[in-house]
Amino acid sequence: MNQQVREAQYAVRGELAIRSEELKNELVVGAKLPFKRVVGCNIGNPQALDQKPITFFRQVASLCEYPDLLKDENAEATARLFPSDAIARAKLLLKNIGSVGAYSHSQGIPHIRANVAKFISERDGHPADASKIYLTQGASAGVQLTLQMIVENSKVGIMIPIPQYPLYTATLAVLNAKAVPYYLDESKGWGLTAEELQRSYDDAAKKGVDTRALVIINPGNPTGQCLTEDNMREIIGFCSRNKVILLADEVYQTNIYQPKERPFHSFKKVLKSMGHSYNGFELISYHSISKGMVGECGRRGGYFECEGLCESVMEQIYKISSISLCPNVQGQIMVDLMVNPPKKDDPSYAQYKKEYDDIYFSLIKRSQLLVDTFNSLEGCTCNPADGAMYLFPQIRLPKRAIEAAKAAGKEPDHFYCMAMLEATGVCMVAGSGFGQVEGTAHFRSTFLPQPELFDGFCTGIRKFHSDFMNKYKD
Amino acid sequence: MNQQVREAQYAVRGELAIRSEELKNELVVGAKLPFKRVVGCNIGNPQALDQKPITFFRQVASLCEYPDLLKDENAEATARLFPSDAIARAKLLLKNIGSVGAYSHSQGIPHIRANVAKFISERDGHPADASKIYLTQGASAGVQLTLQMIVENSKVGIMIPIPQYPLYTATLAVLNAKAVPYYLDESKGWGLTAEELQRSYDDAAKKGVDTRALVIINPGNPTGQCLTEDNMREIIGFCSRNKVILLADEVYQTNIYQPKERPFHSFKKVLKSMGHSYNGFELISYHSISKGMVGECGRRGGYFECEGLCESVMEQIYKISSISLCPNVQGQIMVDLMVNPPKKDDPSYAQYKKEYDDIYFSLIKRSQLLVDTFNSLEGCTCNPADGAMYLFPQIRLPKRAIEAAKAAGKEPDHFYCMAMLEATGVCMVAGSGFGQVEGTAHFRSTFLPQPELFDGFCTGIRKFHSDFMNKYKD
Repeated sequence: MNQQVREAQYAVRGELAIRSEELKNELVVGAKLPFKRVVGCNIGNPQALDQKPITFFRQVASLCEYPDLLKDENAEATARLFPSDAIARAKLLLKNIGSVGAYSHSQGIPHIRANVAKFISERDGHPADASKIYLTQGASAGVQLTLQMIVENSKVGIMIPIPQYPLYTATLAVLNAKAVPYYLDESKGWGLTAEELQRSYDDAAKKGVDTRALVIINPGNPTGQCLTEDNMREIIGFCSRNKVILLADEVYQTNIYQPKERPFHSFKKVLKSMGHSYNGFELISYHSISKGMVGECGRRGGYFECEGLCESVMEQIYKISSISLCPNVQGQIMVDLMVNPPKKDDPSYAQYKKEYDDIYFSLIKRSQLLVDTFNSLEGCTCNPADGAMYLFPQIRLPKRAIEAAKAAGKEPDHFYCMAMLEATGVCMVAGSGFGQVEGTAHFRSTFLPQPELFDGFCTGIRKFHSDFMNKYKD
Repeated sequence: MNQQVREAQYAVRGELAIRSEELKNELVVGAKLPFKRVVGCNIGNPQALDQKPITFFRQVASLCEYPDLLKDENAEATARLFPSDAIARAKLLLKNIGSVGAYSHSQGIPHIRANVAKFISERDGHPADASKIYLTQGASAGVQLTLQMIVENSKVGIMIPIPQYPLYTATLAVLNAKAVPYYLDESKGWGLTAEELQRSYDDAAKKGVDTRALVIINPGNPTGQCLTEDNMREIIGFCSRNKVILLADEVYQTNIYQPKERPFHSFKKVLKSMGHSYNGFELISYHSISKGMVGECGRRGGYFECEGLCESVMEQIYKISSISLCPNVQGQIMVDLMVNPPKKDDPSYAQYKKEYDDIYFSLIKRSQLLVDTFNSLEGCTCNPADGAMYLFPQIRLPKRAIEAAKAAGKEPDHFYCMAMLEATGVCMVAGSGFGQVEGTAHFRSTFLPQPELFDGFCTGIRKFHSDFMNKYKD
């Protein structure tokens, strides 16, 4: 068996998640547990925690699935169930797609790529080119594909933040490439400096690692920080000086919780604002339908945009995409809807806006409630989230807890999370799965449980923590 | 850039397909070409050539997309548009899935895997286990994942048929593994012998290749042959003696055109019929929603079943699946529908049966019409298709055509297919993309153009071929 596969680790769906599945099954068959529902805070999966999908998006998807609804003989019944703009959009999409059951162009449906290009142009105030956009089965698939393109041999290194989203370490392990870690500074709100990037690059170079790319997750996962424009210019300067490709994971670009102090800027926009001397700078930016207020994870859709890559590399990306034939068409349709939602004066606009805003403002509120909860726990400190869907608190565990973890053969943070799962049904992920400064312990939690359950959720965590700390008091 | 990626070839979406896209775009902007429509016979993509999807399947998919249709207040309007069994199935699926917008279990939704296991058990008369089934984004994704598991280093070889479906050579090139070719015998209806398998294995062993698996495509792609039970027992014996894993690509299992003389048998069934001495035999079987009468290619759905793999390997397959989170849920729903279609006495049964049979019998007829057409062409011979969706005729081209191809820097079969595309709008794939005996020339064509256009399609090929042969007459 492939040894690299064996060595890859993916904590988000690791031992804790597997145990949480077992507990779910036990509840189904009526087992008596200290909780009534398993709450998966291990993964940003909003609709699994009952977040309602955007109605307009699902109406269009439903009509595209069953085009007979658009036939004249069904017009009256269909009009009772679907608004006119959903019907019009479905017709437009089907005209451009044909059937959702047919393979599309391997790079993605041209009409949808054109809409993505329009979205990016309007977002950034700089033109985007549909021929440089590749639709994918979620951002993860795009990241895996582009890393595979870049990794030429086992000396190639890719810079990744610590803590990071473990897609990166797992993919690099499978590709047998080197993960080159740079550290985010927890004491400065998970800040990032060009000095730390250079230290990381230089340390790797001394070990013979040939660093080819830098991954930035902005807003951060698991850390939630949102970069300032100045900081982004520094990062671009670093990449330019050291000739590394910038891989910008921007899937949380609409999960922005301090929009005035810390708005989202795309790397594309900042790069374009830096003038002609950066022409030819190589940037790949990823986006997804799984996050934001869309939250359509199960559909697997997303895109990446390439900037500054030469034509021959673009052809190779097309070829490698074509071996998997095409991204699933329903995922592509959702990309279209995400980048081109109802506009003011459209019949569905008011409902769309309300649904979107309700989710958005509730996420802000829930993120604050959870930060406060974590900061109220003995030995626990937590930076607030500028963006994304997660908090990454640090916990200082009693020595006796650390010893008990060692005796059980577990990392202390993992031991803590497992105890929480067994006591409360809440599944979080241990910080060791993301990487952390040696000797520290963290965990990652989403703040996605629904508003009506949120107080109970926070109370459960408080009670568990207090019991745990008492049990292992030094 | 990754050199293995550069070396991978995937002819099905290669130069001919790219040129056909250009021609399509030229037609859209009103260019005058010798044809009115580009006909993509390069890929088994039925719905792109106007094959109607199965109505019941799309009704269920549509309801799952927009569950508001199932609310009481919409019951009356919904009942006018959807039959009761589609409504019941959608409710059952949503009960087990939650939202189609949520990530599912990485291995696939348990309810759907249980239905797949039931389907396999009934098909084979031997029990199947849902825990050994992995739902995937099409069979291609399953093949890529399992090959990645098996390929440990660049000395590992995987036996593949020649001619083969280029997914295999492309994936092995990317993984930097050795393709170990065995030849199908065109003069015996693309037959396969255990002697040829052993020759192939032994030749590779002499070159230091460590052969770990054998790929069998049954029914064959591009060759259309369907294996007899005796032949399958020989193949299993070969694998057992040489300790290689059998990878059974069975995506065309319902595209069977001589059901009495050449019925489909799954490798699982044949293996189980061989008794206890084959316990522990390692088999992975792939299936897909893209082919058969379902033809839902764009949705990307399928599954593979593992037999005889040890627990630790199964855990690794789960882990590597989990890095990509989950297969898209709409693809999973279509797997459920494929393995559990309407039953006799269900309200939708009559329509389902008619739609299925219409496609099926029409495919038989179209395959015969196209075989006759190919066999009527000067210098062309073609085996009939026992199954699958393709014909793979051999053409003997005039010397002057071969010289013209050389002058143009093309393989002769590619040169022929390009001339056909430019003259008729019909896109086929040159045999060199699949592999063929040195010095021979073939091409692959689907027989998927719709019945009402089929005569014109065949006449166009005849006329082109005659013109081509006259132009390059020796």
